[in-house]
Amino acid sequence: LHNNQLLAQIDELIAPRNEERRKPKIPKGTRDFNPLQMAIKRKVFKIIQGILLQHGAVEIDTPVFELKETLTGKYGNDSKLIYDLDDQGGELLSLRYDLTVPFARFLATQSLTNFKRFHIAKVYRRDQPNMTKGRYREFYQCDIDIAGNYDPMIPDAEIIKVVNDILQALELGSPFTIKVNSRKILDAMIEIAGAPHSKFKTICSSIDKLDKEPWSEVRRELIEDKGLDVVIVDKLGHFVSYKGKPFELLQKIKDDKLFDASEAGRQGVQEMTLLFDYLEAMNCLSNVSFDLSLARGLDYYTGMIYEAVLEGANIGSIGGGGRYDGLVGMFSSKQIPSVGGSVGIERVFNILEEQYKKKLSIRATETEFLVCTVGNGLCKEKLRLVNEMWARGLKTEIIYSEKPKPRKQLDYAYENQIPFTIWLGEEEIKGGFVKVKCTYTKVEEPCPRDKLFETLEQKLVQYHDDL
Amino acid sequence: LHNNQLLAQIDELIAPRNEERRKPKIPKGTRDFNPLQMAIKRKVFKIIQGILLQHGAVEIDTPVFELKETLTGKYGNDSKLIYDLDDQGGELLSLRYDLTVPFARFLATQSLTNFKRFHIAKVYRRDQPNMTKGRYREFYQCDIDIAGNYDPMIPDAEIIKVVNDILQALELGSPFTIKVNSRKILDAMIEIAGAPHSKFKTICSSIDKLDKEPWSEVRRELIEDKGLDVVIVDKLGHFVSYKGKPFELLQKIKDDKLFDASEAGRQGVQEMTLLFDYLEAMNCLSNVSFDLSLARGLDYYTGMIYEAVLEGANIGSIGGGGRYDGLVGMFSSKQIPSVGGSVGIERVFNILEEQYKKKLSIRATETEFLVCTVGNGLCKEKLRLVNEMWARGLKTEIIYSEKPKPRKQLDYAYENQIPFTIWLGEEEIKGGFVKVKCTYTKVEEPCPRDKLFETLEQKLVQYHDDL
Repeated sequence: LHNNQLLAQIDELIAPRNEERRKPKIPKGTRDFNPLQMAIKRKVFKIIQGILLQHGAVEIDTPVFELKETLTGKYGNDSKLIYDLDDQGGELLSLRYDLTVPFARFLATQSLTNFKRFHIAKVYRRDQPNMTKGRYREFYQCDIDIAGNYDPMIPDAEIIKVVNDILQALELGSPFTIKVNSRKILDAMIEIAGAPHSKFKTICSSIDKLDKEPWSEVRRELIEDKGLDVVIVDKLGHFVSYKGKPFELLQKIKDDKLFDASEAGRQGVQEMTLLFDYLEAMNCLSNVSFDLSLARGLDYYTGMIYEAVLEGANIGSIGGGGRYDGLVGMFSSKQIPSVGGSVGIERVFNILEEQYKKKLSIRATETEFLVCTVGNGLCKEKLRLVNEMWARGLKTEIIYSEKPKPRKQLDYAYENQIPFTIWLGEEEIKGGFVKVKCTYTKVEEPCPRDKLFETLEQKLVQYHDDL
Repeated sequence: LHNNQLLAQIDELIAPRNEERRKPKIPKGTRDFNPLQMAIKRKVFKIIQGILLQHGAVEIDTPVFELKETLTGKYGNDSKLIYDLDDQGGELLSLRYDLTVPFARFLATQSLTNFKRFHIAKVYRRDQPNMTKGRYREFYQCDIDIAGNYDPMIPDAEIIKVVNDILQALELGSPFTIKVNSRKILDAMIEIAGAPHSKFKTICSSIDKLDKEPWSEVRRELIEDKGLDVVIVDKLGHFVSYKGKPFELLQKIKDDKLFDASEAGRQGVQEMTLLFDYLEAMNCLSNVSFDLSLARGLDYYTGMIYEAVLEGANIGSIGGGGRYDGLVGMFSSKQIPSVGGSVGIERVFNILEEQYKKKLSIRATETEFLVCTVGNGLCKEKLRLVNEMWARGLKTEIIYSEKPKPRKQLDYAYENQIPFTIWLGEEEIKGGFVKVKCTYTKVEEPCPRDKLFETLEQKLVQYHDDL
């Protein structure tokens, strides 16, 4: 008997641990979005969608998986990071790796030749996850692209305008800079410095580190690791020191006759001049920096490139893209010139989550009122009132109890940061009024039922001002 | 030479056909969402989210895949429809099959014991697709559930209220009915009729056909195919004839002493009475029908069940659910009583898409103005104006040409149903005005630049009234 009691006690002690052990896990590198994160997500999506719709962009979505052959050969060495589906006796499928290949596939499937679209969706990479740095295996991308044959630099300017306005509207708490450069200028730099064109990619990938490393280190890497001639590297070093306000830098480049020796260079400078003219007309130059050290590594850019960075924050880019005239025709015999880019939406989520945690200014729910009762037999009266409030568009909750304790109702309101509680009791019902209590000023006052909605709407205005 | 010419001609002739053949496909049973469908989707999500947030529900999201073991054993025979991911040397994963199992997993992972959440996301089933009937392998579900220990029928009533208000707000063009019944009443019917409890599921699946088939056919099936005694079946036939307005039917059941012989029956009737009381208090009875022939087949319901159907439309249910007190504890030793359901969001998409195609009242873009130019050298002037309009929140586009032809600009406005074009030419710029043309009334009038926004905002009000 004693043994049995002991065993029962042991069982009781280890039950929670077993429970913990049995707790179902979620796949490596993924996460659930909790209610607060979803509130942030809704807010971010609303801002981005609002600005893009204002510019006449349309939204699309594609299936989460594509035929395996659609993705094959599009990602080089990174193909090994693609999630394949099991061969269950149908087509061979893979989860989308980005939104660019599905976009090109969409254009081909629908036989479109011009299209201004955005696409916000999750993509999948079997990468080494790093949750603390926000690197997940399932993550959102937000792409905006303008595909079609248009006059030079007008869509390019609108893309930068859109990214600028989105980053502004998101209120990320620090100023941002949009660095702009051109693939043609990069080509010219390498040509004039005397480096072989075959080294374009490897040179760019070194230069690309200049936002984290000093030139001395990049110089060492170019000479020692990549075997470039010192004279060539020092010429490159001269080029990448050019950065500054767009029109000032254009003047300096002109004064220094920096690209007079290269056709690509002259073309690049001409395009940048037109771009900055257009951006100035759209009052969109103050955050833009012309920066010859910007060298986004991707091979497929053919013209303007850009990257947005938050000042002071050591989080890498929060947006970027450029012109890629040869990419979206990959599924068709026709090429469709395109310019586009993405907003680093996962980084935006992280920044806003940190902000909101500090300020407590965002809640998972939006509830404004909790209808409370004191006493017995008031459940239907409570439902009647809450229904009137819903009908007026007021965000209102109740506690799911027939006669909840006042303390429990107040606690619920405080826990969920509900700004107002509305109290119904026998006395109030007989007298035709309710008591309205503000949870953050603690002020409680009676309010006649026939003036209720007027009063509540005034209180809401006050609450939103107080926030 | 002739042969070569002929071959070249043949090549030219078949090129488009080869192109068509090479056209990339999308996976079987899936579809792209085009811009119009996305506009509908945004509208539907906004309505649903708005109502749910008004009720203090929170939103969550989970990864598109779960550990295979999380899904194993949850779907019985339908398990064969689950998409598995390829074993690429990590965890074994499967795409989510519904949102219920991920919800239960979420509650267990986060150790929650009460939660009012909604979840709108895509789920995946390797079913035989039927695109014309809207059955896809990738499709949206929209679930709302209230989990937690609460007083009887209060959360149940709110779930029906929410579904009622969502269906009302969606304006689906036909009246709808929410049929309500109870698992306890179904149990009592089978008990009183004298059928063995082991036949519960098979009897319910026959009764469930009564919305499509007459009783005579269901009767035949129960007797001939399912081997039930004629006397039992006729007693069941008596029960399922009970349907009507909630309080009238409750009275009739009472008058006929229909469930006096069954404890489960008396409990079920008592719960329904309370439910209808609460629904009446929330002014939510007019679309509700109490219907003893409603027998949602799912085994896991334990209390109230409901199903929403559109009148006149032969499309099956557009929502349904019920109470399932034993389900969401599947990953934990604790059970969490829950009530919930779903809105048939894919059917809603289809209905609204048909509606909008007829009425043309929804567009893929929301653009209100197209800024147009006549003449050369006006590109920057155009960008300046469009930027002012964006800054005022006006939805405005331009054509990406330096000097587009007037015809081309007008065509673009007509094709995209942009209601107003704004014209800039040398004369207008000198005179400090623009011309504003309405594309649907064809009225064109000059407008001074310093009165422009006032005028445009008036015109927008008129446009929205005209819609």
